[in-house]
Amino acid sequence: MIEDVNRVLLPEPTLRRLPWYLAYVNMLHGQNIEYVSSTQIAKEINVDASQIAKDLSFLNIKGKTRIGYQVEHLATELSNFLGFHEVHKAFMIGVGSLGAALIQDSGLMQYGLRIVAGFDVDERIIGTEICGVPIYDVAQLDMRQKEYGADIGVLAVPVEHAQASADKLQRSGVKAIWNFTPFRIKVADDVVIQNTSIYAHLAVMYNRINCKK
Amino acid sequence: MIEDVNRVLLPEPTLRRLPWYLAYVNMLHGQNIEYVSSTQIAKEINVDASQIAKDLSFLNIKGKTRIGYQVEHLATELSNFLGFHEVHKAFMIGVGSLGAALIQDSGLMQYGLRIVAGFDVDERIIGTEICGVPIYDVAQLDMRQKEYGADIGVLAVPVEHAQASADKLQRSGVKAIWNFTPFRIKVADDVVIQNTSIYAHLAVMYNRINCKK
Repeated sequence: MIEDVNRVLLPEPTLRRLPWYLAYVNMLHGQNIEYVSSTQIAKEINVDASQIAKDLSFLNIKGKTRIGYQVEHLATELSNFLGFHEVHKAFMIGVGSLGAALIQDSGLMQYGLRIVAGFDVDERIIGTEICGVPIYDVAQLDMRQKEYGADIGVLAVPVEHAQASADKLQRSGVKAIWNFTPFRIKVADDVVIQNTSIYAHLAVMYNRINCKK
Repeated sequence: MIEDVNRVLLPEPTLRRLPWYLAYVNMLHGQNIEYVSSTQIAKEINVDASQIAKDLSFLNIKGKTRIGYQVEHLATELSNFLGFHEVHKAFMIGVGSLGAALIQDSGLMQYGLRIVAGFDVDERIIGTEICGVPIYDVAQLDMRQKEYGADIGVLAVPVEHAQASADKLQRSGVKAIWNFTPFRIKVADDVVIQNTSIYAHLAVMYNRINCKK
């Protein structure tokens, strides 16, 4: 049962590698390739074959000796396992440059995240729509939550409003906050927090560039 | 000298924490607060005070006993140290949903990344502009590189074109590739690779949500 497997708390490194395998087997599927071995995945993705076998052992999927995994089946199982086939409703809090960009990114929908509404304090954008997604006054958050029942709050507000916005989101009943701000927000134990500060990655990249000069 | 310090290969965890401190002290600066101690930063950010002192020791900055760090000075030093005050010219390869979104995100410019041109294969967008950034045919990459001299290639193409696009970028002479695809591209030793697969973060978040159900 997929449901049972999904309840297992997986190590974060595994959860980060599984989408790499998925991207690769999706590509193979597009090339009409039928079978792939963990050795082949390992070669292409630069991850140890034994690590791949271990990661995939969390799924209910078996490769055939000497033939490997059936590509289409592996892609479906990985996608299901990772929750990409389900629809997770989300609110976007902060519809500035990054927030608006995320609403427009259709890629998120392919990975199971549907942003159903955006919230902001800027009167110039409240009442408008971006790609069909309505933008509301953030004061309406609780009211709109009753209407939409969003599980996830995506946070892209200015740093000084990050904690207050996170608090509002928690009170509205979201189960998780996807934090795109570089601020370390605090949440209650029963709320999942996922930090994705793309700007912090720039710092790593700049340092590596300077060191190679 | 800042230049010397910047050539030191810093541990990635440190490089990822420094922007958190920067975000926090920028907020304090906006509130006209003059001094902050590492203990106070620790409390707000959930990082050990000793760890913070260690991280900040990479910078040429000293706190005063019992008073702590001067907020404005710390913010400037952190931003300089992280390279956010320099301008790094970048090409966006793949101007689909995510690529277009990143071109529109003015936040990147605040962190020192200026996307100077976009490249795509889609004739409907070649020759257009997004927020003043021209979109060229990807076949013009080498030619445009002579014109712009971009150091960084930002990759947001479909998975099946990720490696070929990365190869093209390398041949054009970029020093680093910021890879937003979930594909594990291979690059030469002298090219910096930074993987930022925001969709992989969704997999981690979904798993954590399911485990708390």
